[in-house]
Amino acid sequence: MNRSINFSAGPAALPLAVLERVQDELLDYRGLGHSIMETSHRSPEFMELADRSKRNLRAIYGLNDDFEVLFLQGGATLQFAMIPMNFPDGGRPAGYVDTGVWASKAISEARCIREVDVLASGASACSDIVSWGNCEGRPYVHITANETVNGVQFPELPSMGDTPVCADISSEFLTRPLDVNSASLAYAGAQKNAGPAGVTIVIVHREVIDAMSGELPSMLSYRRHARAGSMLNTPATFSWYVAGLVFEWVLAEGGVAEMERRTEVKSRLLYHVLDQSDLYLTTLPSECRSRVNVPFWLGSETMDQKFLEAAEGRGLRNLKGHQRVGGIRASLYNAVSESDVRQLVEFMQDFERTA
Amino acid sequence: MNRSINFSAGPAALPLAVLERVQDELLDYRGLGHSIMETSHRSPEFMELADRSKRNLRAIYGLNDDFEVLFLQGGATLQFAMIPMNFPDGGRPAGYVDTGVWASKAISEARCIREVDVLASGASACSDIVSWGNCEGRPYVHITANETVNGVQFPELPSMGDTPVCADISSEFLTRPLDVNSASLAYAGAQKNAGPAGVTIVIVHREVIDAMSGELPSMLSYRRHARAGSMLNTPATFSWYVAGLVFEWVLAEGGVAEMERRTEVKSRLLYHVLDQSDLYLTTLPSECRSRVNVPFWLGSETMDQKFLEAAEGRGLRNLKGHQRVGGIRASLYNAVSESDVRQLVEFMQDFERTA
Repeated sequence: MNRSINFSAGPAALPLAVLERVQDELLDYRGLGHSIMETSHRSPEFMELADRSKRNLRAIYGLNDDFEVLFLQGGATLQFAMIPMNFPDGGRPAGYVDTGVWASKAISEARCIREVDVLASGASACSDIVSWGNCEGRPYVHITANETVNGVQFPELPSMGDTPVCADISSEFLTRPLDVNSASLAYAGAQKNAGPAGVTIVIVHREVIDAMSGELPSMLSYRRHARAGSMLNTPATFSWYVAGLVFEWVLAEGGVAEMERRTEVKSRLLYHVLDQSDLYLTTLPSECRSRVNVPFWLGSETMDQKFLEAAEGRGLRNLKGHQRVGGIRASLYNAVSESDVRQLVEFMQDFERTA
Repeated sequence: MNRSINFSAGPAALPLAVLERVQDELLDYRGLGHSIMETSHRSPEFMELADRSKRNLRAIYGLNDDFEVLFLQGGATLQFAMIPMNFPDGGRPAGYVDTGVWASKAISEARCIREVDVLASGASACSDIVSWGNCEGRPYVHITANETVNGVQFPELPSMGDTPVCADISSEFLTRPLDVNSASLAYAGAQKNAGPAGVTIVIVHREVIDAMSGELPSMLSYRRHARAGSMLNTPATFSWYVAGLVFEWVLAEGGVAEMERRTEVKSRLLYHVLDQSDLYLTTLPSECRSRVNVPFWLGSETMDQKFLEAAEGRGLRNLKGHQRVGGIRASLYNAVSESDVRQLVEFMQDFERTA
């Protein structure tokens, strides 16, 4: 087996120890005589797994019983619709902060459903909360904590008093602590840091759920998902199982504080090379830079292509930037090790020397 | 490894050859250096896999280019909401046929969204289409082709002229040919016959899509899913991959005609024992009996429990009936072999003799 170094933005690298465990018990889940894929979500074995995964995620983020932890489907994009559907009308339009591609998508999905004000736009909006104006009386404010495409990250989640904050934390999930005093509803597609695509983790305050509309089809209602323990219908059991193994791995490695430390170290290594370089271009002010997804450019498509091919030759895979912005992007999720990043930066320095 | 005989209604038994393939390439998908779970849905490798799976499903069901094949999320229950959301207003209420637990759920979800007439109720509705009345001018008629809980199956899908028929084929998916002249939209959660929970296969006529509303959030719009090739956002890549392997397995085993033949043989073995028995009770007229999910009862909860425990002792697992109806249920999906069913009926005869 020849494992590559995988900088994919998602679906993305998973811890090898988790994959080996999955492989090991794929035909026979812990003596059950069949795969976890072949096991009913109502079975004692799956219920135990589901409970354990919720407990572990609570432990990782220090969530008390005020919060529900849901395992849904449809990715962040279905959350873009569910949030405006579920929050009650607050008398004022919902507020959205547009920091990049994913925030823009969240806004255009919400506009299918309710009135929306864009409070601020551009990367700097994430560190300039004063520019958002007074948010009192808004049903909620929505932010994209980390923009996977643009590489923009909120230095911290904003706290807005009584106004609920909804945060898309997909691509920073499990890479830093979650300020539960700020986010009323935080959601993450698993396919970045937590498992296979197909399960979406939602952390939501019970008070927020209690205030939500109850008139929706069940699969679109947070309240009904919460009441059913995320088992209104068959959940994405296999993806949930793998996410649960990733939570165990995070705890065994030292928890989210350790993940944050590693993320800092890895991103610092990469930004250091970018900042020293005459070849690699970055566009963002340092206070908005993502520590998870790092886009950069070499000044021409030809050079970008040459870089990508040379990187492939060194076993450094999936560094191509998103089609919307081009260039290069390195995603430094938890399963990408410091050693992986050191190999990348060494390659980048070599490439710059010979380019 | 000690594989049990798994009669689960879903998530359910998968072909061992498929699971072994998944296990074999779990850490390194065909020389790529990482797992298919870690591979972008936009990568050439995943795009090839996705195209192949669509081609194979088209081959299995003989679908021409008039039909779209979609790989969505949210299970049948999200389809219960999407169908009433997407179909245009036809001047008359949509028509639903209530043959059991799943049809009832489809009806109550649809009622969150639009006006609904229940055309007929009870098991016999599936073989008595005349009782539904004139359906001309209805935006669509919805049926549950096979009721997983109640064990009621349509002998054939009804053809309704210009009125589109929407069919939940979740638990009969890949067990018999699909009459594409009847169904305008057929959908199936994968976790019965096609793979891990978390992917929903939708087969839908392009004319139906063209007539649909375009004002919905993207994840709830068939039209937008179709335009994006089921990649509006990251699809459930791993579940899709396994479903693709199951399609290959079905074709290699002789296609859906062979699956139908096997399903007939297996269900006949089981119904023969039920019909001969003084101990086991069935309630359905033979023309409505499901060839896939076979519920039966032993007359008391104590006897049901004794039966289940004795079956477990013989390695016959997951025979407990659904909580809504109790008793016993054997699901005879494609990965349950004739030999498996022979072991079940032998056990049943032994049990009856000594009970």
